Amino acid sequence: MHATTPTAPPTNELQDLFGDRMVTGGAELDRVSRDESRAMPEGAALAAVFPESTEEVSAALGWANRHGVKVSVRGTGTGVSGGALAYAGGLVVSLERMNRIMLIDPVNRLAEVQAGVINAELDRAAEDHGLSFAPDPASAEISTIGGNIATNAGGLRCISHGVTRDSVAALEVVLADGSILRTGARTRKNVVGLDLTSLFVGSEGTLGVITSATVRLKPIAPGIPRTFRASFPTVEDAGRAVTAIVNGAQTPEVLELLDARSVQIIETYKPSGLPADGCALLIGQFTGLQAEQAAGDTAQLCREHGAREVVIAEGESLLEARRLANPALNAQGLRVSCDVAVPVGELAAVFRGIERIAEQHGRTISVVAHAGDGNLHPTVEAEDTPQGHAAAEVVIGDITRLALKLGGTISGEHGIGLVKQAELPWQLDEATLHAQQMIKYALDRKNILTPGRGI
Amino acid sequence: MHATTPTAPPTNELQDLFGDRMVTGGAELDRVSRDESRAMPEGAALAAVFPESTEEVSAALGWANRHGVKVSVRGTGTGVSGGALAYAGGLVVSLERMNRIMLIDPVNRLAEVQAGVINAELDRAAEDHGLSFAPDPASAEISTIGGNIATNAGGLRCISHGVTRDSVAALEVVLADGSILRTGARTRKNVVGLDLTSLFVGSEGTLGVITSATVRLKPIAPGIPRTFRASFPTVEDAGRAVTAIVNGAQTPEVLELLDARSVQIIETYKPSGLPADGCALLIGQFTGLQAEQAAGDTAQLCREHGAREVVIAEGESLLEARRLANPALNAQGLRVSCDVAVPVGELAAVFRGIERIAEQHGRTISVVAHAGDGNLHPTVEAEDTPQGHAAAEVVIGDITRLALKLGGTISGEHGIGLVKQAELPWQLDEATLHAQQMIKYALDRKNILTPGRGI
Repeated sequence: MHATTPTAPPTNELQDLFGDRMVTGGAELDRVSRDESRAMPEGAALAAVFPESTEEVSAALGWANRHGVKVSVRGTGTGVSGGALAYAGGLVVSLERMNRIMLIDPVNRLAEVQAGVINAELDRAAEDHGLSFAPDPASAEISTIGGNIATNAGGLRCISHGVTRDSVAALEVVLADGSILRTGARTRKNVVGLDLTSLFVGSEGTLGVITSATVRLKPIAPGIPRTFRASFPTVEDAGRAVTAIVNGAQTPEVLELLDARSVQIIETYKPSGLPADGCALLIGQFTGLQAEQAAGDTAQLCREHGAREVVIAEGESLLEARRLANPALNAQGLRVSCDVAVPVGELAAVFRGIERIAEQHGRTISVVAHAGDGNLHPTVEAEDTPQGHAAAEVVIGDITRLALKLGGTISGEHGIGLVKQAELPWQLDEATLHAQQMIKYALDRKNILTPGRGI
Repeated sequence: MHATTPTAPPTNELQDLFGDRMVTGGAELDRVSRDESRAMPEGAALAAVFPESTEEVSAALGWANRHGVKVSVRGTGTGVSGGALAYAGGLVVSLERMNRIMLIDPVNRLAEVQAGVINAELDRAAEDHGLSFAPDPASAEISTIGGNIATNAGGLRCISHGVTRDSVAALEVVLADGSILRTGARTRKNVVGLDLTSLFVGSEGTLGVITSATVRLKPIAPGIPRTFRASFPTVEDAGRAVTAIVNGAQTPEVLELLDARSVQIIETYKPSGLPADGCALLIGQFTGLQAEQAAGDTAQLCREHGAREVVIAEGESLLEARRLANPALNAQGLRVSCDVAVPVGELAAVFRGIERIAEQHGRTISVVAHAGDGNLHPTVEAEDTPQGHAAAEVVIGDITRLALKLGGTISGEHGIGLVKQAELPWQLDEATLHAQQMIKYALDRKNILTPGRGI
């Protein structure tokens, strides 16, 4: 047992603080030691605590800092990059009990929430006021706002509403030494001091623990949304159509792409009559009073770019297929994917390049994409074994380098975590990596918070 | 002479690097030692250099860092908070010669510019592609994009397009030690490492010198803009109307407020037939194909909130009066103003509070406001003398505390610089100030970049 070795940190101090909201083993510790990535914890954590207040988070970090214990931080553990995996001998800080919506302020279109509030729950609470919380990662029904903020989560609506960072006004953050910061402001404009809010957004648990947030809400668009689905003979054609749509007069609320292989996988998982003619699909949505007109104009634009068939429907039904992509891939045991992004003008080029990489490696690659953002999730088909994963990773490496060559990024929305740590220097130069480390050191002198990941 | 004292830094090294693009005295040094604030440099600078490349900026900072020389950084010196004032015995780095637009990429709606490019020049270059550069501070015709970014400048269109930060994709930055960072990405989404881009935006020269930027462009809205002007018996009525408009279905491109005293000052400066009946004016603009409808709906909303008269016009003519506010105030020698912001739901309350403060001090206060953002520029009338300024500053202090009490900020868009340095602890707590200083120390160990200001 860790707790009984002479040099082990005194968990009894934590026990005094957290009582039965602390575990040192068993299924519960196991549960909060993992996330949804394909990586596993390197060893058993010492303990997990479940704070219910900022002060308790402060006490837990103060303890970890005094005793040099590594800390992993989690909401509901839906991350896919290994950022929330427990450390061997480490402390897990789970924020899932900090789940209060403290305020919805419709006049100023703000909400104040604890970090453990589920994304979709805030969205539903806002709906009563005719408002919505724009960030909608695929995990919206199960992921926490704290986790969304810590990873600057993306989702389907980034093309129209931006990323999570664009919805965050102010944060409460506990630093490694237990001190409590309040960043940002409730106003739309604020230029007082450094933008620590943006610095903590997307910092993946490396700089501090976000305990609560003031987030911006947006009005729900009036009228009935219109969704369109256009099928293209090749994914490159679809890519060119996306570039044209994004540069058109009307910005879609959502603009997603499924290549032919993804369509096949989704239709196998849950048949819904998707075209079985080997086409790539673009699925988009418009909202607001001009939605019908905009969907019609965009359908025409798709036809001009080679679309074979275009369907327009009221509501969200056509988006359903896109939402099935993740479960469909999982059901097939297809777990090795990535999250690259390219400038939208390079979509046709990146699809062409991915086809070439697939040929070179003799592997099938399927692609789903938040196409309007240039954000792709290619999945490499391989056996669901360590060997299979390793072989697929080599292909992912080539796709990642391709994206960088096209002016892109190695991660559009999933973050670096543990899984992409080795790829960081592919994108960031020495001086930038060094600056990040200096900032990390400035705020976490003992390097206890999510060490060795994310930056 | 500084340069001849035994301990003086060896400016001959700089001379070798910059030749006739360096000055050590005279009118040119004097020019680049000041900004548009009401503060003055504390003493004579040692030298000013005018680099033409990032490498030259790096060389200049490397020199300053080696010799422990304080550095002030400037574009065209239009800042109003004293952030660019020269230091006694310091080095001035003026980026005005780094004025190349390197790329306009209409497909990805990006531009790459050197820091010294004038804001409006980029906007005009983008116009050839049907695009615009959204940030439009009042100084757009004379201020540089580097300065806009370093101060996270605001302007009239923030209500619709956000602040400068929202238009910045990537930066090139030289740190105090001369090392060169590249932050951000060309993609819409990027979660690789810390968001250093946002950290440098608004850092007011304290963390590094921004030498070039990749900025986002936006399509110019189709159709003819519609501008409206509504007059209200009291400024509180106008404030309530703003809250209603901001919470309405259509977001204006611009939503500005002039109180009765401002209207009078502007009409005195350049008569244009503004209402002389003691009313406060709301002036707003809508763009896009629905502009006419939206302006009509908003006019109706204004009437429901007590507007006496509403005028609607095509184009921008009604905005002209708002743009005259700064020159009109300057012409009257009225220089003591502030830049507070409040949540938009508190506009009526802040106007009521300002009237009370005016009464208490027996001073006339005029207010112009980027009302849609809750960002106010109250000006306290006083003699244009040091004594007059000091008396007015006391009143400004009360207004600033009022804004904070209403959940607001001490600066919405002008920044802290030297002028508001003493007010920083009014808004930021000890832990936040400390975290800022730690980050500053991490990136500028010798504290040479814009020391003692901004954070």
